[in-house]
Amino acid sequence: MARRAVVLLSGGLDSAVALYEAKKRGYDCHCLLFDYGQRHIKEIDCARRIAKIAGAKLRIVKLRLPWKGSSLLDRKRRLPLDRTIGDINKKIPSTYVPSRNTIFLSMAGSLAEAIGARAIFIGAHFEDSSGYPDCRKDYLEAFRKVIKLGTKAGMENALTLEFPLINQGKSGIIRRGTILGAPLGLTWSCYKGGKLPCKRCDSCILRAKGFKDAGIKDPSMK
Amino acid sequence: MARRAVVLLSGGLDSAVALYEAKKRGYDCHCLLFDYGQRHIKEIDCARRIAKIAGAKLRIVKLRLPWKGSSLLDRKRRLPLDRTIGDINKKIPSTYVPSRNTIFLSMAGSLAEAIGARAIFIGAHFEDSSGYPDCRKDYLEAFRKVIKLGTKAGMENALTLEFPLINQGKSGIIRRGTILGAPLGLTWSCYKGGKLPCKRCDSCILRAKGFKDAGIKDPSMK
Repeated sequence: MARRAVVLLSGGLDSAVALYEAKKRGYDCHCLLFDYGQRHIKEIDCARRIAKIAGAKLRIVKLRLPWKGSSLLDRKRRLPLDRTIGDINKKIPSTYVPSRNTIFLSMAGSLAEAIGARAIFIGAHFEDSSGYPDCRKDYLEAFRKVIKLGTKAGMENALTLEFPLINQGKSGIIRRGTILGAPLGLTWSCYKGGKLPCKRCDSCILRAKGFKDAGIKDPSMK
Repeated sequence: MARRAVVLLSGGLDSAVALYEAKKRGYDCHCLLFDYGQRHIKEIDCARRIAKIAGAKLRIVKLRLPWKGSSLLDRKRRLPLDRTIGDINKKIPSTYVPSRNTIFLSMAGSLAEAIGARAIFIGAHFEDSSGYPDCRKDYLEAFRKVIKLGTKAGMENALTLEFPLINQGKSGIIRRGTILGAPLGLTWSCYKGGKLPCKRCDSCILRAKGFKDAGIKDPSMK
């Protein structure tokens, strides 16, 4: 029987490629998705389709914390729009969700132990690291230690954290995803949940630049 | 204005004393409690009373994960009963909840950032450390690093994790709580939710030994 892995899935590009990295390594993939009050549920629909096409199981955890602290959760706050790449990477944006990856990874650790998974995959990467502290390599290494020391499976060297995209930028991830056959056309990046991507939020801007730099046409664009 | 702290509260002895440690250090305390499907809600009632008498705010997060992995969550599994202290400390018991403290701490980190708290307090201690990996000092130090590296507040040296009881055993905590005026009589330790403590589960046994060793009468016992 194939070893199991828990894969954090969001409906976006990076986690879809992380899922295909886990598949490539032969894992039986159990995706974990959070319905945590994001502005739109479009990414949840995308994640369902991605998990299905990848032949992976999907669990959705509904989470409503009685506090916010991010423009991604608080519809009364404005999303930053039309920023340049330089501005996007300058400081932590209002779309930062306090402790989001720590919360997601803690629950992934719990699921991993409950189903006997040997690895947890997260698609965090280098290019997000200037804006989001919880996407940085040293943070992920610290969390890997938390799993090693704070879980029964980790103590038995039976569970670890994998972040295979951490040294990549968006264009590298897009190239890798294309090679792995990840369904990039099914992924959704836009922070808004319109019929089409807004092309103005940070996430749309980084996605467009990634495809351009990779020299690949975005398959989600008609 | 007093600096704020988030205190993980459970209704048990240790977290009540951790709360009074935070109060003693002058923090405006915001308690965080999880209704996570534990066998009984008696500890939630106790936590409410403890927070009230301490003059602390209390937030309750309801959390239902679609997996279990612990006899504390799964009513179909039997709780270990009538074990000796030696047996209790020998290995990880079935009452271990995968990644519980990691999940609780990750959410405490999120709340702390949302309300601008400077510290997170957890009542984990030495005597639980043989049974529960997520009560060990090296685990807590690793998580402190996760907060330092993975949150905006941590990066700005504006948030840290405190585990003031980690070098204590139960009797030391009871003595310390008594000195601090913590309402130990309002705390609940029993894993079962009966009218009176069962006196047979691990938690009852450790509590009784703690009071005995401290030479203090358990104020919750009539």
